[in-house]
Amino acid sequence: MAKELTARAEDYAQWYNDLVIKANLADYSAVRGCMVIKPYGYALWENMRDALDRMFKATGHVNAYFPLFVPKSLFEAEEKNAEGFAKECAVVTHYRLKTDTEKPGKLMVDPDAKLEEELVVRPTSEAIIWNTYKNWIQSYRDLPLLINQWANVVRWEMRTRLFLRTAEFLWQEGHTAHATKEEALEETVKMLNVYADFVENWMAVPVIKGVKTPNERFAGAEDTYCIEALMQDGKALQAGTSHFLGQNFAKAFDVKFSDKENKLSYVWATSWGVSTRLIGALVMAHSDDDGLILPPKIAPLQVVIVPIYKGDEQKALIAEKALQIVHQLQQKGISVKFDDSENARPGWKFAQYEMQGVPVRLALGVRDIENNVVEVARRDTKTKETVSLNGIDVHVEKLLANIQSSIYEKALAYRNAHITPVNTWNEFMDVLENKGGFISAHWDGTSETEEKIKELSKATIRCIPLNNPKEAGQCILTGKPSTQRVLFARAY
Amino acid sequence: MAKELTARAEDYAQWYNDLVIKANLADYSAVRGCMVIKPYGYALWENMRDALDRMFKATGHVNAYFPLFVPKSLFEAEEKNAEGFAKECAVVTHYRLKTDTEKPGKLMVDPDAKLEEELVVRPTSEAIIWNTYKNWIQSYRDLPLLINQWANVVRWEMRTRLFLRTAEFLWQEGHTAHATKEEALEETVKMLNVYADFVENWMAVPVIKGVKTPNERFAGAEDTYCIEALMQDGKALQAGTSHFLGQNFAKAFDVKFSDKENKLSYVWATSWGVSTRLIGALVMAHSDDDGLILPPKIAPLQVVIVPIYKGDEQKALIAEKALQIVHQLQQKGISVKFDDSENARPGWKFAQYEMQGVPVRLALGVRDIENNVVEVARRDTKTKETVSLNGIDVHVEKLLANIQSSIYEKALAYRNAHITPVNTWNEFMDVLENKGGFISAHWDGTSETEEKIKELSKATIRCIPLNNPKEAGQCILTGKPSTQRVLFARAY
Repeated sequence: MAKELTARAEDYAQWYNDLVIKANLADYSAVRGCMVIKPYGYALWENMRDALDRMFKATGHVNAYFPLFVPKSLFEAEEKNAEGFAKECAVVTHYRLKTDTEKPGKLMVDPDAKLEEELVVRPTSEAIIWNTYKNWIQSYRDLPLLINQWANVVRWEMRTRLFLRTAEFLWQEGHTAHATKEEALEETVKMLNVYADFVENWMAVPVIKGVKTPNERFAGAEDTYCIEALMQDGKALQAGTSHFLGQNFAKAFDVKFSDKENKLSYVWATSWGVSTRLIGALVMAHSDDDGLILPPKIAPLQVVIVPIYKGDEQKALIAEKALQIVHQLQQKGISVKFDDSENARPGWKFAQYEMQGVPVRLALGVRDIENNVVEVARRDTKTKETVSLNGIDVHVEKLLANIQSSIYEKALAYRNAHITPVNTWNEFMDVLENKGGFISAHWDGTSETEEKIKELSKATIRCIPLNNPKEAGQCILTGKPSTQRVLFARAY
Repeated sequence: MAKELTARAEDYAQWYNDLVIKANLADYSAVRGCMVIKPYGYALWENMRDALDRMFKATGHVNAYFPLFVPKSLFEAEEKNAEGFAKECAVVTHYRLKTDTEKPGKLMVDPDAKLEEELVVRPTSEAIIWNTYKNWIQSYRDLPLLINQWANVVRWEMRTRLFLRTAEFLWQEGHTAHATKEEALEETVKMLNVYADFVENWMAVPVIKGVKTPNERFAGAEDTYCIEALMQDGKALQAGTSHFLGQNFAKAFDVKFSDKENKLSYVWATSWGVSTRLIGALVMAHSDDDGLILPPKIAPLQVVIVPIYKGDEQKALIAEKALQIVHQLQQKGISVKFDDSENARPGWKFAQYEMQGVPVRLALGVRDIENNVVEVARRDTKTKETVSLNGIDVHVEKLLANIQSSIYEKALAYRNAHITPVNTWNEFMDVLENKGGFISAHWDGTSETEEKIKELSKATIRCIPLNNPKEAGQCILTGKPSTQRVLFARAY
């Protein structure tokens, strides 16, 4: 594999697309806006999914599966939610194709197989799930209901990008039901913290936790909590959201419970989700012009061993030692591959594993074996060292932990250097154009001003950080009084 | 929970539906033919999926994800496959809803958002996958390609039943590409064996491996291999299929590879799948009039401990001991729940766990603790014994293994007692009506006769068993010469 990535400095968007394709994460498909997640990308997603799933289960949630289709009458029941998603939903109208009598070998929609009621392919599942919860919730004893679903959803986006914005994507969506407002709010924040924990400690991407402004809320929510990450080009990316839904869906679907005193009340709800979009965030947060940089804790492959040899005798000698190392590392729970394939030279393999972001590469030659050492290269810093084979397993284990925290620290330093307080519109535009990142600025609190700023600058309010300090100031656009700074950025 | 199941002897179909609902495996949904898989049912599916996934990976397969939608032009490319699925596919024709100006608060399909090309919701993914493989396969070095996908698919069935036949279902579909016919055939049989291994050794359901007749083949396959199981009502159930697709899809999508001599050839293909239908098979193979009977290796919960007490003092005493047992069992990797909830009495809990098929129940009272014993009840045989608390973990571990094999042996004995050789049409109908099960009979080998037998008896040829002995005979219907017996049955 030649190093063929466009450089980030040259064209960041092109670098990203090149990288996703060349690292074998995903591919374009024949379906408008949909992608194919390739085996390497899917293995990464499996690791992310499994880690998240363990966290969900550890916090008392169980998985279930609800239908892909939402009948139109259910879809429209919660008005704001319906309004928010109606513009971008795929609609099934027929249930059969038939032979096209005018075009031999072709099929056509059978007009006799029109559905009485159209089915929306779920863009999110609140409607179908709350329509089900109605049958499951009668008494306070049925609460809380803490259910998560791993599923595909479809949103008919006009401009799509691999992982970041695709018409179909994979995600999880938690949907919980509670007896009290307090409990639902607590759940909303708890799951936001689970997401932050996962994104920071597994994906090594630092996030800011906050609340969305009404403009940026999930359609149908009372409040949307979010975690916001920063990419290397200075643009923000919403990495996860947790919604406090109030009683909106309970009212739309008439879901009431009787409390201990037999009084009927509407149920309180939350929903929360992260998606394959996170893979886009992961790629853009860490990687460089040579390829992916993956945090060891979620890398599909943590260590690769490449043999350097001439002739069968050397090959056999190295293989013997390499397989010992493989065994030692596996005993430590480290995933490792010994790549002795003969259809590529070591240099080509090195470049390929760099492209795919394998955190640690061991190169082993006969002289190394004579000296009882191995060359250890780390992907993130591209540094190499010669290490004794005695205790190589312990060395690699520590190195992987070190890489994990080192990647995080680097991203954190970048992120922290890119939160810029400004006090005037000129400063705001200057930072936006020349530095990027989050801009901490005063805003008068109105949707109109927020819209106007977006129009003028393409920047949006990413969030009002949790525990945001109160500070008197003046809106950067209107000069009107403000009580706190909020975080603006251009975003994915 | 009262014991409210319809008895099997009374109405087997109703017993099944009752059981699926009351055991909390699944629920009906607002979407025609689609079901909700409830948390307990989904936990069962997760265990099945994880076991299968490990088997697929151990045989060199990797997972990936392909789009939900198949553009009509791709769908129709492989003619037989298209013909087979056209009659039952959901079709997306529009990508937007808009406000219905005539009905306030209602939405309607936006006629301005009609797709140029209709999208079929995948009923199976050969078309979309082979259209992708075209870009991934150039040389023999790209082969074999051994990919599996876990996904939802939609087939617009007219008569649906929970798990057994639903419009949307979850499944896995393997799609492999090979350089030679021999290798593809080997893969087809290998995956059939993986399925048989899983269904027999994890689900404890014995199966017969065989090949389908041309009538019963997967649309687009050259040969369909299958595993057939027998339910307690004497009906057969196809539990998994593995298809040798020949070069049909390679030709339809023009997928060629250059071999070592640079000669271009079409690629050889297989596909294989099992689905949530297996849960239906599991339920019907083992369960009784009191509820589910689950094999320990895939049961969501293997052991439950129910305390029997009066007053807080006894409760505390029992809880202490119970938690010790929980810890001991967990150390052995056994999943266990201590159910000390106060909103149900022990008898109610017993019935509930019987309904849900928890393999082992421990009941613990103060006198048991005084005597250092516990009452151990096994779900499958409904037998109880009093067992010393010393080494209770080892006892339970052995018991679980014993239950696993005992359930299998029981199903095997039933199955073996229900393979009946017959030589005349009268015998055939007699066995079919009065005994059920598989009928081993001669058939003249023609599709016409097969169709006729189906019409007359509602029985189909389930398979020609692998390694079927040759035997001269006469077709039970036509009297024409036959070279081997095949297995008939009425089937789900």
